[in-house]
Amino acid sequence: MSIRLIPRASLAHEPALLLKTLLQQSSRYEPHREIVYRDLFRMNYQTFNERVKRLANVLTEAGVQPGDTVAVMDWDSHRYLEAFFAIPCLGAVLHTINVRLSPFQILYTMNHAVDKVVLVHEDFLPIIEAIRPQLTTVERFIVLSDKVYQEGRIDTADYNVPDGMAGEYERLLAGTSDEFAFEDFDENAIATTFYTTGTTGHPKGVYFSHRQLFMHTMGLCTLVSGLQAVPFQSPTDVYMPITPMFHVHAWGFPFLATMLGAKQVYPGRYEPELLLKLLLSEGVTLSHCVPTILNMLVNNPAADRFREQLSRWKVIIGGSALTKGLATAALSKGIRVYQGYGMSETAPIMALTYLNDQERALPTEQQVDLLTRAGRVAPFIELRLMDEAGNFLPHDGHAMGELVAHGPWLTQGYWQEPDRSDDLWQNGWLHTGDVASISADHWVQIADRTKDVIKTGGEWVSSLEIENLLSQIDGIAEVAVVGLPDEKWGERPHAIVVLKPDFVGKLEPDAIKEALQHRIDQGELNKWYVPDRIIFVPEIPKTSVGKLDKKRIRSEMKDQIL
Amino acid sequence: MSIRLIPRASLAHEPALLLKTLLQQSSRYEPHREIVYRDLFRMNYQTFNERVKRLANVLTEAGVQPGDTVAVMDWDSHRYLEAFFAIPCLGAVLHTINVRLSPFQILYTMNHAVDKVVLVHEDFLPIIEAIRPQLTTVERFIVLSDKVYQEGRIDTADYNVPDGMAGEYERLLAGTSDEFAFEDFDENAIATTFYTTGTTGHPKGVYFSHRQLFMHTMGLCTLVSGLQAVPFQSPTDVYMPITPMFHVHAWGFPFLATMLGAKQVYPGRYEPELLLKLLLSEGVTLSHCVPTILNMLVNNPAADRFREQLSRWKVIIGGSALTKGLATAALSKGIRVYQGYGMSETAPIMALTYLNDQERALPTEQQVDLLTRAGRVAPFIELRLMDEAGNFLPHDGHAMGELVAHGPWLTQGYWQEPDRSDDLWQNGWLHTGDVASISADHWVQIADRTKDVIKTGGEWVSSLEIENLLSQIDGIAEVAVVGLPDEKWGERPHAIVVLKPDFVGKLEPDAIKEALQHRIDQGELNKWYVPDRIIFVPEIPKTSVGKLDKKRIRSEMKDQIL
Repeated sequence: MSIRLIPRASLAHEPALLLKTLLQQSSRYEPHREIVYRDLFRMNYQTFNERVKRLANVLTEAGVQPGDTVAVMDWDSHRYLEAFFAIPCLGAVLHTINVRLSPFQILYTMNHAVDKVVLVHEDFLPIIEAIRPQLTTVERFIVLSDKVYQEGRIDTADYNVPDGMAGEYERLLAGTSDEFAFEDFDENAIATTFYTTGTTGHPKGVYFSHRQLFMHTMGLCTLVSGLQAVPFQSPTDVYMPITPMFHVHAWGFPFLATMLGAKQVYPGRYEPELLLKLLLSEGVTLSHCVPTILNMLVNNPAADRFREQLSRWKVIIGGSALTKGLATAALSKGIRVYQGYGMSETAPIMALTYLNDQERALPTEQQVDLLTRAGRVAPFIELRLMDEAGNFLPHDGHAMGELVAHGPWLTQGYWQEPDRSDDLWQNGWLHTGDVASISADHWVQIADRTKDVIKTGGEWVSSLEIENLLSQIDGIAEVAVVGLPDEKWGERPHAIVVLKPDFVGKLEPDAIKEALQHRIDQGELNKWYVPDRIIFVPEIPKTSVGKLDKKRIRSEMKDQIL
Repeated sequence: MSIRLIPRASLAHEPALLLKTLLQQSSRYEPHREIVYRDLFRMNYQTFNERVKRLANVLTEAGVQPGDTVAVMDWDSHRYLEAFFAIPCLGAVLHTINVRLSPFQILYTMNHAVDKVVLVHEDFLPIIEAIRPQLTTVERFIVLSDKVYQEGRIDTADYNVPDGMAGEYERLLAGTSDEFAFEDFDENAIATTFYTTGTTGHPKGVYFSHRQLFMHTMGLCTLVSGLQAVPFQSPTDVYMPITPMFHVHAWGFPFLATMLGAKQVYPGRYEPELLLKLLLSEGVTLSHCVPTILNMLVNNPAADRFREQLSRWKVIIGGSALTKGLATAALSKGIRVYQGYGMSETAPIMALTYLNDQERALPTEQQVDLLTRAGRVAPFIELRLMDEAGNFLPHDGHAMGELVAHGPWLTQGYWQEPDRSDDLWQNGWLHTGDVASISADHWVQIADRTKDVIKTGGEWVSSLEIENLLSQIDGIAEVAVVGLPDEKWGERPHAIVVLKPDFVGKLEPDAIKEALQHRIDQGELNKWYVPDRIIFVPEIPKTSVGKLDKKRIRSEMKDQIL
């Protein structure tokens, strides 16, 4: 006898897992809680729900049909949040455009995603202007302006819609009905898409279904509300993203905060002074950002002045690794820091800091050690380590292999890229491209990107680890390490270094090597960790999302060496 | 163009929503937290996970295959929790037998559910003994004994397995491996089944899929952890059921508590002294029970002595309505009370007390008013009011209609009862059989069962409301009101009353009617609320789950009247 499926009465009903369900309950419990945009606009959840329906009407009137793609180019805003729901709930696909890509890349993604209607903030009109002749699918633009909120009221009467734009967002919303009945459809319908820039070729489009985003929201709720990994519950917490909404849906937190009807604050374009002001005046308790932003804040003299308020702020670091230095500095200002791990392909959360009963009792120094790991495996996610032959490696905290994943919210491929999709899902597991170890108690430690790990003399050496060592040497401001071909060893590490202004002309490559040699002599380090070459540069090449551009560094250094 | 479904790479993987996922993560975060059984047994989550796998091996060795049904007859225990996971994760169906049914009904349900293997607590062996000759499908019994835990150790060496039993649970677990790989299968596979006794005919089998129980767990997590309707989060809360696990999976809380790795306490057979002892010694913070149990506890002199500890205890009332009297009494002892609403058909949660920002600021008296409602509509659940013609009625707090539901965890029918399944799902909505009103802010107020509501002279009169009025008259201990046929008015209310001992022979029916008449004269009440007859009885007939058996009362009173 095999599995028995539930029989269903002919008229029995079981709802699909759709984003509209999260939307519907957002005003069920706390209709009076607020969603705030900078110092320009605030509304309650009741109004938010009505505005989402107005947007659905505006888009429908603009010709948007189920299956069409609608793109957004905006800073983090209440309008973006409205688009997060209105577009997918129509059965259309929300394309969150990465405004940090080059105009050429933006053009590529817009044509590739078949964008039909585009909501664009005034700030990005010059980009649209430049690429417009080559856009092959866009039929209509709607402009988003902050000017209409000025003086605390929405007054679009004297706003001049720029040429080529079909209308202004607030004016269009005001001109339509706040009633709209979102239909039911298959939970595997695409809800969102966006593009990730790899090291080779065109940007790749990832995509997520309603079911996947629903389940990601459930996973987050389990993690932060149920398990209190990073404590978050709607009656007491206030959320403000400081990772862009175009960057993997701001980690999915807007869906969670909206479902729970929690107070939310959207900061628009990130301006350090305004971020701090909103954080304090709106009582923000949860954010996520890259280390750079936290660093800026920690080094702001105001951090000491507002120590008490900041002690209520929890911040999750992602994008790049949280270093011990930054973790310690943040904790010393009373800010609670955590680290999350994920990628565009994974919607994104796959791991998050979770200190268990025993670990919460540890002294700060040992906790910092745990905070600088990628996190503990998230609910419903399964992570494994795979070697190059496709075998699983033990979770013993030592064995290093490529991190591969199963879970309810992983992109099932790249949009119209069958070969790259198959590569991503080799052996039936999503390949992260990260080399990692996993401890028996489920902590994940990322060693390197698979393509950045340096294979020297049969050993795997993490370029991140060498960078970490070098960054501890006095006088070094920034560093990047890559592996380059070597006849004898296969590969050898090479470093480029930016010196702090005071050290320029004073610190020499040999002195740096000596500093490392000293640690080798003391047995702290293996000798093959010392880079063959150390080159001083004024600036390190970075990608559009601010990560070290190792592909370019490798190629430039290779040209020099050969 | 229509909806676009996500394309999947040929080897792409997206997991089904299965209970094994909840099980797997139960030891991921807090392997050292405990699951406690009375004062007899305790284990941590690591051990729990191993024991679930041992049970899977024991059942497999006993011939259990995917699609088979395995029944459990036990008090609330750690073994029951192990069965909650091991049986469904095998692809088998867990049948939670209602031990309060008559032996004849138990026999009917076991044959109807095609039970193959039965786990049975020693206390229920006499029932099994009595019905065994007529059980048509059971192949094997495994006995559960509390004796083996005595003296704080599991010592099964000198335990004599009763005749006809294939073995004792602990001995069988000890004799097998703690490794077991649960397979993947369709998330719509039946995970659990149990029977609900209606007013007519045989008990009806409801059934729930893995996906439904997974989503119910997500709904509960959103409600109690995310929204903090009844605050529950794993680092600080300790759960102990006081509604039986055979009663709609103890409201699904065991699945939530296990997924979160929260400390859990299972009290076995409910004994007031032990319940209080466990509550205090294990630091229980969350329970659910029927009003009778809370009433017992509130009236226990110990409640005053342990006021401080009890102030950390939150208790959700369900099964029967929470009265203002009991709510006030509990609050005065410092116990935080809440009310849940649901039924066997709905897995069960459809509504729960949720006080919003404004309501939390109200004085206690007004809060009590809200607490005695059925609750606010739960996450992901949609409730509507339907009239007899199938039209929807407004949610204005006044209009009364039958409560009908949509949601991700509603039984899709009754097992092998096509006609009753179609009745349940008339018009594509699950019919609760409850008459209710819903306020604009989503509070649900149950007026009556559709079949208990009294239709007199064209008016709908709630039998519950008349009972409520009568129960406020001095000297009345218990009361039940039913509608009986009347030539002139269609139906008229009739009451049976249990007097308090001191009032027997002193209070007469006419005096009771006079008391009601007094309220009519003051305009508080309509005259058709006064029962035609008031009969004194020593005891009121109840169903197996302790509810007023109105069907029997109606039939007995009808026989007397006609």
